[in-house]
Amino acid sequence: MTASLAIRRLNAADQDFAQHLDHLLSWESVSDDAVNHRVLEIIQAVRQRGDAALVEFTNKFDGLNASSMADLILPRERLELALTRISPEQRDALEIAAKRVREYHEHQKQDSWTYTEADGTVLGQKVTPLDRAGLYVPGGKATYPSSVLMNAIPAKVAGVQEVVMVVPTPRGEINEIVLAAACIAGVDRVFTVGGAQAVAALAYGTESVPPVDKIVGPGNIYVATAKRHVFGKVGIDMIAGPSEILVVCDGKTDPDWIAMDLFSQAEHDEDAQAILVSPDAEFLDRVAASITKLLPTLEREAIARTSMEGRGALIQVADMAQAVEVANRIAPEHLELSVENPQELLPLIRHAGAIFMGRYTAEALGDYCAGPNHVLPTSGTARYSSPLGVYDFQKRSSIIQCSADGASELGKVASVLARGESLTAHARSAEYRIKG
Amino acid sequence: MTASLAIRRLNAADQDFAQHLDHLLSWESVSDDAVNHRVLEIIQAVRQRGDAALVEFTNKFDGLNASSMADLILPRERLELALTRISPEQRDALEIAAKRVREYHEHQKQDSWTYTEADGTVLGQKVTPLDRAGLYVPGGKATYPSSVLMNAIPAKVAGVQEVVMVVPTPRGEINEIVLAAACIAGVDRVFTVGGAQAVAALAYGTESVPPVDKIVGPGNIYVATAKRHVFGKVGIDMIAGPSEILVVCDGKTDPDWIAMDLFSQAEHDEDAQAILVSPDAEFLDRVAASITKLLPTLEREAIARTSMEGRGALIQVADMAQAVEVANRIAPEHLELSVENPQELLPLIRHAGAIFMGRYTAEALGDYCAGPNHVLPTSGTARYSSPLGVYDFQKRSSIIQCSADGASELGKVASVLARGESLTAHARSAEYRIKG
Repeated sequence: MTASLAIRRLNAADQDFAQHLDHLLSWESVSDDAVNHRVLEIIQAVRQRGDAALVEFTNKFDGLNASSMADLILPRERLELALTRISPEQRDALEIAAKRVREYHEHQKQDSWTYTEADGTVLGQKVTPLDRAGLYVPGGKATYPSSVLMNAIPAKVAGVQEVVMVVPTPRGEINEIVLAAACIAGVDRVFTVGGAQAVAALAYGTESVPPVDKIVGPGNIYVATAKRHVFGKVGIDMIAGPSEILVVCDGKTDPDWIAMDLFSQAEHDEDAQAILVSPDAEFLDRVAASITKLLPTLEREAIARTSMEGRGALIQVADMAQAVEVANRIAPEHLELSVENPQELLPLIRHAGAIFMGRYTAEALGDYCAGPNHVLPTSGTARYSSPLGVYDFQKRSSIIQCSADGASELGKVASVLARGESLTAHARSAEYRIKG
Repeated sequence: MTASLAIRRLNAADQDFAQHLDHLLSWESVSDDAVNHRVLEIIQAVRQRGDAALVEFTNKFDGLNASSMADLILPRERLELALTRISPEQRDALEIAAKRVREYHEHQKQDSWTYTEADGTVLGQKVTPLDRAGLYVPGGKATYPSSVLMNAIPAKVAGVQEVVMVVPTPRGEINEIVLAAACIAGVDRVFTVGGAQAVAALAYGTESVPPVDKIVGPGNIYVATAKRHVFGKVGIDMIAGPSEILVVCDGKTDPDWIAMDLFSQAEHDEDAQAILVSPDAEFLDRVAASITKLLPTLEREAIARTSMEGRGALIQVADMAQAVEVANRIAPEHLELSVENPQELLPLIRHAGAIFMGRYTAEALGDYCAGPNHVLPTSGTARYSSPLGVYDFQKRSSIIQCSADGASELGKVASVLARGESLTAHARSAEYRIKG
């Protein structure tokens, strides 16, 4: 006997649907005062005492006995060794995934551009890679080699000279697949440190750890809080909330497939969110039955059950137009359009991190090897932000080169506007360039 | 008699130059606990009580007597009226500037792209504008119409449907040029509110103010702190530090021009930073003399003096190569290459918000009307960030559409990688798509 699963059912026709949906989606990540305080202390210590503090914290939090930073550095040769320690099947899979991710991201590379006006004035933007990027990789049980590929490859495609990776090794535990992924992705240096202390070291530099320009990669609440605090000194990627999927289905996909697609999100963690939307009420029943049938067969059953019961939902809508409305309201991290003709819906979708189109495109394919990045905006932030990409490791400088004639004409306009703002040194600087 | 100005002189050949430079550049913006506390209270009140709280705070902080939000809304007609209240010369200047800014930013617009693989799998990215953007405009004395153009036009070029502007009107003071600029830039709605309460209203929405997806624009410490706190609920632009210019000169530009270019930065505020680098020691002396001569003629003399004495510097370098090194170390917001052949130096410049090339290209021209944006990364953040642009109002969604054959092949790779991460629901979801 399997315990049946109490999954929430909503109907978009209900009067209080908007309210129920808001409640279902509500999520605020909170770094409490204690965490903030602890993290600020750690950052301060690493800024002041560098390597010494980094070694101390690492020994304390990761249960190690390192005597100096020399014990916490993995040279490139160690990464190459890892390649020989994983199975050939795993190595092949990593290499295929890396190749596809690299090819896809090549399309995102942006080039400098300029144009010249009639009077010879040149305007444009120069695009340059960051000098150095830092990649945080969680250690221990939740270590994902696919994340190493997804974070490091865009940096390398952008032309970042040095990608520095930090990964904690609690009780000395090293994940060979993670090191192999780092090798394949072209990571340049690895330090086996983690937590807020690793973030502080990457932001400010120590005797051994070079300061980076941007820190990317997922981490626990200490890591996320530390990233928030060092933002400004360095760039950071988004602070991710729990992972989510919204499946929109016309009712004609195998309900077992849909159930497993929902589980592939729900198994991540208890706060993950998996929602199905369909105009077909009877289909929602069949998926509910598949969920009940398949849940006990999952290795991560307990996590998936908590997630499905706490944050999951099956939502009935009137038609596909309303399904799209719900999708745009949610702005999901992952949107699966499990329908006959997804191209028909695509122009209507305004907000989603990634769109998985058609019955064959399981989210899991995109998570690992289709090519697009799996670091995506969560918690509705797809309304204003984008998947991690090459553009996150490139930046732009405006280029302005006025000809003598151009400066003379622009000088007149600038003078009027500057005087309107009472910034007369601006005005006079511009007026010097006006021809007599 | 004019008091001579004590401006710092540094020489890159000195042993402790790096240290002196670090000290000169050091800047940390601090929101103290009292500010954080006050801002969090205001945000909380606006979230809970909406318009009522917004009206209360506005009456209190801006010295108004508004009885409801109806008193704090400027309809589009009011903006059009402002156009008739400024001088024809000012209107022309604003329109020329807006046209040039619009033309330049059109070049930044990004398009969706896809490619199709041999087995029919389609990959790409869909680019969409944000639905709604909020523009913060400071009120009172430091009101800059040029900032309205620079913040609103990229949003409109990106295709943002609704640009909502907030601008406080302390003691009822309305700046007609600002409203005229808003009209020309295509701003859709204006609310005369400001401070942390305006940021909270834009982020969470009230009965009258629609919630936006991203908030841009400069403000005081309360505004900056509020933006930091609402980040995540909405997107924000960078938190700007004081404005800075680095002028690199070969010693052959009129020293009065260079002095005035430095002043055009120094007059902004006491913390602004103006630095000149040249290999010509005698030229540095001549610029110092021009500074002393011209300073007393400035309307904003006191501010410029404090800025030049406190944070300015004249730096002697061995040659142009070393000047470029200093520029890359500083990663200045504004970099003026006042040299004979700036194109020669351009490939060597790695980090700068905007590069003003040649003796004619005064920074002031770029501030107002050359076309590029004047919202630029400050305090060395040009190492990893870019000028405000159309790309800040567009976001991307990954597109993945696997063919049946593609899904079958990718399913095998995803299965191996997912099982390596112990995420077996991911693996099984992928395996369903493998052909039997």
